[in-house]
Amino acid sequence: MTEIKLAEISTLPPGDLDKEPIEDATKKITKEIEDLQEIMQAQRKYSLLVVMQGMDASGKDSAVKKVFDEIGPAGIKVQAFKKPTEEEMSHDFLWRVHKHVPEKGMIQVFNRSHYEDVLIQRVHKWIDEKTVMKRFSHINNFERLLQDSNTVVIKFYLHISKDQQLIELNERISDPKKFYKHNENDFNERQHWDEYMSAYEDVFKNCGPEIPWHIIPSDRNWYKEYCMASAILEALRALPLEYPPKQG
Amino acid sequence: MTEIKLAEISTLPPGDLDKEPIEDATKKITKEIEDLQEIMQAQRKYSLLVVMQGMDASGKDSAVKKVFDEIGPAGIKVQAFKKPTEEEMSHDFLWRVHKHVPEKGMIQVFNRSHYEDVLIQRVHKWIDEKTVMKRFSHINNFERLLQDSNTVVIKFYLHISKDQQLIELNERISDPKKFYKHNENDFNERQHWDEYMSAYEDVFKNCGPEIPWHIIPSDRNWYKEYCMASAILEALRALPLEYPPKQG
Repeated sequence: MTEIKLAEISTLPPGDLDKEPIEDATKKITKEIEDLQEIMQAQRKYSLLVVMQGMDASGKDSAVKKVFDEIGPAGIKVQAFKKPTEEEMSHDFLWRVHKHVPEKGMIQVFNRSHYEDVLIQRVHKWIDEKTVMKRFSHINNFERLLQDSNTVVIKFYLHISKDQQLIELNERISDPKKFYKHNENDFNERQHWDEYMSAYEDVFKNCGPEIPWHIIPSDRNWYKEYCMASAILEALRALPLEYPPKQG
Repeated sequence: MTEIKLAEISTLPPGDLDKEPIEDATKKITKEIEDLQEIMQAQRKYSLLVVMQGMDASGKDSAVKKVFDEIGPAGIKVQAFKKPTEEEMSHDFLWRVHKHVPEKGMIQVFNRSHYEDVLIQRVHKWIDEKTVMKRFSHINNFERLLQDSNTVVIKFYLHISKDQQLIELNERISDPKKFYKHNENDFNERQHWDEYMSAYEDVFKNCGPEIPWHIIPSDRNWYKEYCMASAILEALRALPLEYPPKQG
C-alpha cells in the first residue's frame, strides 16, 4: 500500500488537456451514467453510494449538479451532513448516515459524510486519538456491510489548492449569487489547512485499501467533473446490470 | 469458550425455589431498576439496549411488561421486529435496527432483533451459509459500535421447552384474551424446533463471547422475570451512573 501525499498530487488538469473536448466527453459520460442508472433502478438489485469529501469551497455542490445532471430525481437522493443535531449527537456517529444509505436501485450522494467524524472532530481535538482509530475500524466495518448488501461505495476527495480555496471563498463575498454560501468561519477553518491535509492522508491510509479513494484534481470544474463522472461510469459498468426478464 | 448446549439447560426454576418470595424479590429489583434508569436519563451519558429473542410463545411480551413495569414511558421504548417490509428488505439487514438504537439516557427493548436474520432466514435456507457467517461478523461489529458509544447491550434468550410451547400455543386458541396472538403458522415453525435450537447455539457461539447471552429458563413466568430483572439490574449497577452536578 503506497501512502498518498496530497502535496505531491496536482490540483490542476494535465497541461495538455483542453476544456472544450473534455466538457463534451463529460456530457457523453453523464448520459451513459443515466442509461445505466435506469437499468439499475429497474433491476432493484444493486445501489450506489457516492461519498463526497473536500475542503470548504472545493466545489462539492456544483460537482453533484453537473455529474448527475441527467438522472431524474426519482433515481437519486442527495444528503448533506452538516453540524450534527442534538439527537444525532446522542447516538453513535454512524447512526445518522446509516439511515440514508441507498435502497436497492438507487444512487445516494453524501455531501460530506461519516468521514467528518474523523476529520473536523480530530483536527479540533474534540475526540482523542484512540477514538479516531476505533472510528476508522467502525467505518471500514460499516462500508463492508454495505458492500455485502450489493451497495457499491465510491469515495471522492475533491483536491483543491489552498490558493484556489482563497479565490473561491472571496468570490462568495463579491458575487451576489454566491454570497449565501459565505461563512466567516470557513476562514478560521482555513488556518488548520495542514492539519486537515494530514487528517485526510490518514483517512486514505486507514479507510482506503478495500474501497479506495479517488483523489480528484479540483481547481478546475471541468476537469473535476470529468474525473468524477469517469469513475462513476466505471463503477456502474463493472456491475452485472440488466433489465429484469419478462415474467411468466 | 464453552459451547452452550440448550438441551442441557433446564427451562424450569431450580426445585428449591418458591414462587412468592421470588416475586417479591423481582418487585424490589424492578424498583431499583427504575431508580437507576432515572439517573441514567438525567445524566444522558449511557444507554441500554435489551435484545430479546426466543421461540414463539416464550413470553417475550409479558416479560417486557413485568420487568420494566416501573419505568415511565419517557424513559423506555420497545420496538418489535416482525417480517421485514419491502423498504427494509431493500437495505442491508442492520438498517432497520440501527434506526432504533437508544439515544443516550434511554432504555430500548428489541422484541426480536437483527438476530432473526441469522435464525429464521437460516432455518428456512433463505440465505446461504456464507452469508450467515458474514452476518455474524457484521452483528459483532455493530454491537461493538454501540458499546463504543456508551450503549450497554444485554441479550436474552428466553428458553422454553417444546412441551411448554405447545401448552402456550394451545392456550392462545382457548383463551379469548390470548386469541389475538394465535397464528396458525407458529405450529408450522414448531416443526423446525431442532434446527432453531442449533441455529441459536450457533448464534451464542459466534455472537457471544464479547457480549454474552443470558439464557433465561422461561417455562415459569415468575422465574423468567426474576432472572431478566436481575441481569438488567446488574448491568445498570456496573455503570458509573450519577446525577449531573449543579452548574455554575
